[in-house]
Amino acid sequence: MNLLLLEDADFLDACHVRLQGRRLQHLREVHRAEVGSTLRVGRIGGLMGQGQLLQLDAQQAELRVALDQPPPAKLPVTLVLALPRPKMLKRTLQTIAAMGVPRLVLLNSYRVEKSFWQTPFLDAQAIREQLLLGLEQARDTLLPEVHIEQRFKPFVEDRLPGLAAGTLGLLGHPGDYPACPRAVSGPVTLAIGPEGGWIPYEVTLLEQAGLQAVQLGPRILRVETAVPALLARLF
Amino acid sequence: MNLLLLEDADFLDACHVRLQGRRLQHLREVHRAEVGSTLRVGRIGGLMGQGQLLQLDAQQAELRVALDQPPPAKLPVTLVLALPRPKMLKRTLQTIAAMGVPRLVLLNSYRVEKSFWQTPFLDAQAIREQLLLGLEQARDTLLPEVHIEQRFKPFVEDRLPGLAAGTLGLLGHPGDYPACPRAVSGPVTLAIGPEGGWIPYEVTLLEQAGLQAVQLGPRILRVETAVPALLARLF
Repeated sequence: MNLLLLEDADFLDACHVRLQGRRLQHLREVHRAEVGSTLRVGRIGGLMGQGQLLQLDAQQAELRVALDQPPPAKLPVTLVLALPRPKMLKRTLQTIAAMGVPRLVLLNSYRVEKSFWQTPFLDAQAIREQLLLGLEQARDTLLPEVHIEQRFKPFVEDRLPGLAAGTLGLLGHPGDYPACPRAVSGPVTLAIGPEGGWIPYEVTLLEQAGLQAVQLGPRILRVETAVPALLARLF
Repeated sequence: MNLLLLEDADFLDACHVRLQGRRLQHLREVHRAEVGSTLRVGRIGGLMGQGQLLQLDAQQAELRVALDQPPPAKLPVTLVLALPRPKMLKRTLQTIAAMGVPRLVLLNSYRVEKSFWQTPFLDAQAIREQLLLGLEQARDTLLPEVHIEQRFKPFVEDRLPGLAAGTLGLLGHPGDYPACPRAVSGPVTLAIGPEGGWIPYEVTLLEQAGLQAVQLGPRILRVETAVPALLARLF
């Protein structure tokens, strides 16, 4: 954890916080923090700055905080991702938050196994936990929006054209397509398919919604590798 | 597994192979392959092509194979990586193989925990297993070379200058450095530090060996995210 993230409920007043649970344990066991230690802190949804440990024991920690720095800029991207398998979903949520994606749509696709939609990792609280781990890693305070779209056609036909309007719409897909562009300047809507890829019907509908198919070479990458690779190439 | 990888020992003759173990199980349970099924296959270190299932039961599978396609090109890069923690090492080995890195050096650094060097995942056989998973994912047959360098100074002073000679030498490091270049045309030697980064003494020695420090923005990425992000930006 490169940034200690503070919840609104942690604040005793504008510049004092009290922590328990996972973060307390991390402070004691990983950071080996002591009274007087200074740490990077950030208020979820707000500013970042420094915190000084005023008190620390097995039950709780108390810090004085001074928050005066904005979090880093987000990438100008909406990421539309076919729902990955649960284990990969967890890591991908962390990666997305760490890399600064502000808006994620988790979408159904023909090749998404139906059982993936039953995972407890799709609960709002579980998603938030993984996103927070990504923000702590990358030093950011702004949670990405996550939208869950379990029906492909209504999302792609009715809502995606509005999301993609005024952006460069891209659809990552292996095959005989142009290479994914590099270092684009404006906003992007990027769709990444499931293991095994989108089916042709889905590609057609995504293209009709305003996305153009691009490829990233002959190698088939797992979603957790494709996401950072595509984002790093685009921005 | 997007490619069924064949060991030399699997070959009965030039165009017949027999499989047991993990690959047999995967064929039966994940691919649901049947006699007559056609699969993408590749000989480790050799060509790729098609295989047809001649026989399949609980004990073994037999295929007729025709190998006539070269594997995809490798990236012109030598990656020098501070040894990641064991769980991340496994995934990073897969990613490196999948993305087409031909040569990896796992290096010690001040901030690499000593216990990481004790992991059984550093055994040659364990490394090979992870690399094969990456090759199967990406459809490649050529195993990367992996070199283990447990002493930082002798490697960086004595061997790194030779490796980096004639290449663009880069050292990923957060801070006030030039941005990592994009879409380079020639070979690269790229060093990526541990969690917490290289210490200043290490940066100095790496620079003396011919690498220049570059950064990837204010976000601190985990090694498993930084590796695909840097490679996708460079190539």
